[in-house]
Amino acid sequence: MKKIIIGVMGPGDEATAEEIQLAEKLGFLLAQAGWVTLSGGRNAGVMDAVNRGAQKGGGLTVGILPTTEASKTSVHVDLAIVTDMGSARNNINVLSSDVVIACGMGRGTAAEVALALKAGKHVILLACSDNAHAFFKEIGDELLTLVKSPQEAIESCRVLLASKGRS
Amino acid sequence: MKKIIIGVMGPGDEATAEEIQLAEKLGFLLAQAGWVTLSGGRNAGVMDAVNRGAQKGGGLTVGILPTTEASKTSVHVDLAIVTDMGSARNNINVLSSDVVIACGMGRGTAAEVALALKAGKHVILLACSDNAHAFFKEIGDELLTLVKSPQEAIESCRVLLASKGRS
Amino acid sequence: MKKIIIGVMGPGDEATAEEIQLAEKLGFLLAQAGWVTLSGGRNAGVMDAVNRGAQKGGGLTVGILPTTEASKTSVHVDLAIVTDMGSARNNINVLSSDVVIACGMGRGTAAEVALALKAGKHVILLACSDNAHAFFKEIGDELLTLVKSPQEAIESCRVLLASKGRS
Amino acid sequence: MKKIIIGVMGPGDEATAEEIQLAEKLGFLLAQAGWVTLSGGRNAGVMDAVNRGAQKGGGLTVGILPTTEASKTSVHVDLAIVTDMGSARNNINVLSSDVVIACGMGRGTAAEVALALKAGKHVILLACSDNAHAFFKEIGDELLTLVKSPQEAIESCRVLLASKGRS
Repeated sequence: MKKIIIGVMGPGDEATAEEIQLAEKLGFLLAQAGWVTLSGGRNAGVMDAVNRGAQKGGGLTVGILPTTEASKTSVHVDLAIVTDMGSARNNINVLSSDVVIACGMGRGTAAEVALALKAGKHVILLACSDNAHAFFKEIGDELLTLVKSPQEAIESCRVLLASKGRS
Repeated sequence: MKKIIIGVMGPGDEATAEEIQLAEKLGFLLAQAGWVTLSGGRNAGVMDAVNRGAQKGGGLTVGILPTTEASKTSVHVDLAIVTDMGSARNNINVLSSDVVIACGMGRGTAAEVALALKAGKHVILLACSDNAHAFFKEIGDELLTLVKSPQEAIESCRVLLASKGRS
Repeated sequence: MKKIIIGVMGPGDEATAEEIQLAEKLGFLLAQAGWVTLSGGRNAGVMDAVNRGAQKGGGLTVGILPTTEASKTSVHVDLAIVTDMGSARNNINVLSSDVVIACGMGRGTAAEVALALKAGKHVILLACSDNAHAFFKEIGDELLTLVKSPQEAIESCRVLLASKGRS
Repeated sequence: MKKIIIGVMGPGDEATAEEIQLAEKLGFLLAQAGWVTLSGGRNAGVMDAVNRGAQKGGGLTVGILPTTEASKTSVHVDLAIVTDMGSARNNINVLSSDVVIACGMGRGTAAEVALALKAGKHVILLACSDNAHAFFKEIGDELLTLVKSPQEAIESCRVLLASKGRS
């Protein structure tokens, strides 16, 4: 049966120590819940951390890579999907995810949240600034959930998946 | 010589009457300035209006289309570039533009602004809410210009192009 | 560690009964070898059959889907990567595969073989016409292997993977 | 009104002197016919030559570029559409063309011919080997025209466009 995929988006090189810590915890909990973790796949920031956490939790990790450079892939990616299409791959990230979680915020992450909303995907915002929250609420209120911890994000995923009959 | 391309992004079906009016004026002025107008190419909202205006101004219009459905292309598009890649084409919109202008705001437009900032492109915001402005300032201040009219947008384009030696 | 992915390309709706039988056998053997099976993911022809076979063999299946239409996804796809980019996703199919196997031939498959050769990927041709073989030999001889059975395709994969240190 | 776009595909760095000469002549004649010339846009081989010829003929040239590297764009491209999606952009080349002409053959060109046939586009083959012709005839006979000169290619375009009411 089609596996449940949770996409985790977040800053790469500009990720803060706190965002990295949250992402690793998030990956661990997603894996424990039995879900596949999908990310942008690079060996940087939130992408790297969420995959590391998911592997620690015994889960499967999928990376949707922007380039063909194998050396820039997170070593914690089990399945490397190589797009060679730069930031255009952000749309694949969100379309392939049952639920999208943004952990932290940046330019790429903002594009992913906006593309997710455009595609009618539910988005969970973790470690999100007030400005980001206010803006995304303005353009996609009914699809947004603001959470304060990885545990709360998992709980929201559970509710959203159940509402779609995917549990 | 490579022509100067100005990308105009904005809501499609959800565009307001004011946004449509601004987009048409903008297209007219872009054409008069001698620049090519690039948009998402659909026959809706800001996309349709900016192309209509540009043709009235005697300019050339390029549409980067999300699907192969010819019936959904603006009749004011001179050159239809058919991507068949949905919202992933938003990245092509911004990468192909010397300057990006957002006229109004929505989910697709937000993705385009974020992708433009990610790619280091200058973005001019017209008819933009306070929340949108505050958020994009937070993630891309040095690349943003807020304007109040199509005329002011053209003036900003002129300054930005000159700073890149593209005038 | 990054899993080994074998891409299997082949006709969809136009697949012959023989091609479907070969694809199912191929999927089974790929799974038994411990490799991930990647395909175009649709519920038709070679794509559907190779996934069915791989699941019977206890393997993991990845589908790189051309559209967002969930009803057109093979029920034997474990991980659905939704690109919404039509045939442009063919390039992702080959870039993500350690080795590409073409099972049968058609327009989409021909594009995938050509894109694989362009990217320097090894291609194994199974159930391939003389004309197809002659042509691809002309443009990509050093990357091609012609085989006569699924078993022989697996054996070739093993040799190719070993030569890349991926075994 | 939507302009008529003729896509010319062919080898880049591996183009022969004859293919380059044919491409330049082809571009010139396309321009004289009043059509837009579309290509892969790089400053190499058939792409560069067809754009040079088209500009000499007073025509408009569109390049669909695989990367963001401006230095690799043909100086004879008027409108640079930057995809940053590598060979996946080949599908955009053919979808955007009213008719596709292959001038010479190689891995990228083969992918483009196959993608064009897949999309139901007419393809004119110029300077094509016997093997290539035999293979593409096998998978797309009703959409293929084999020609012996740029002049004959133009004549075929005229007939094909007329049959689609695009003249």
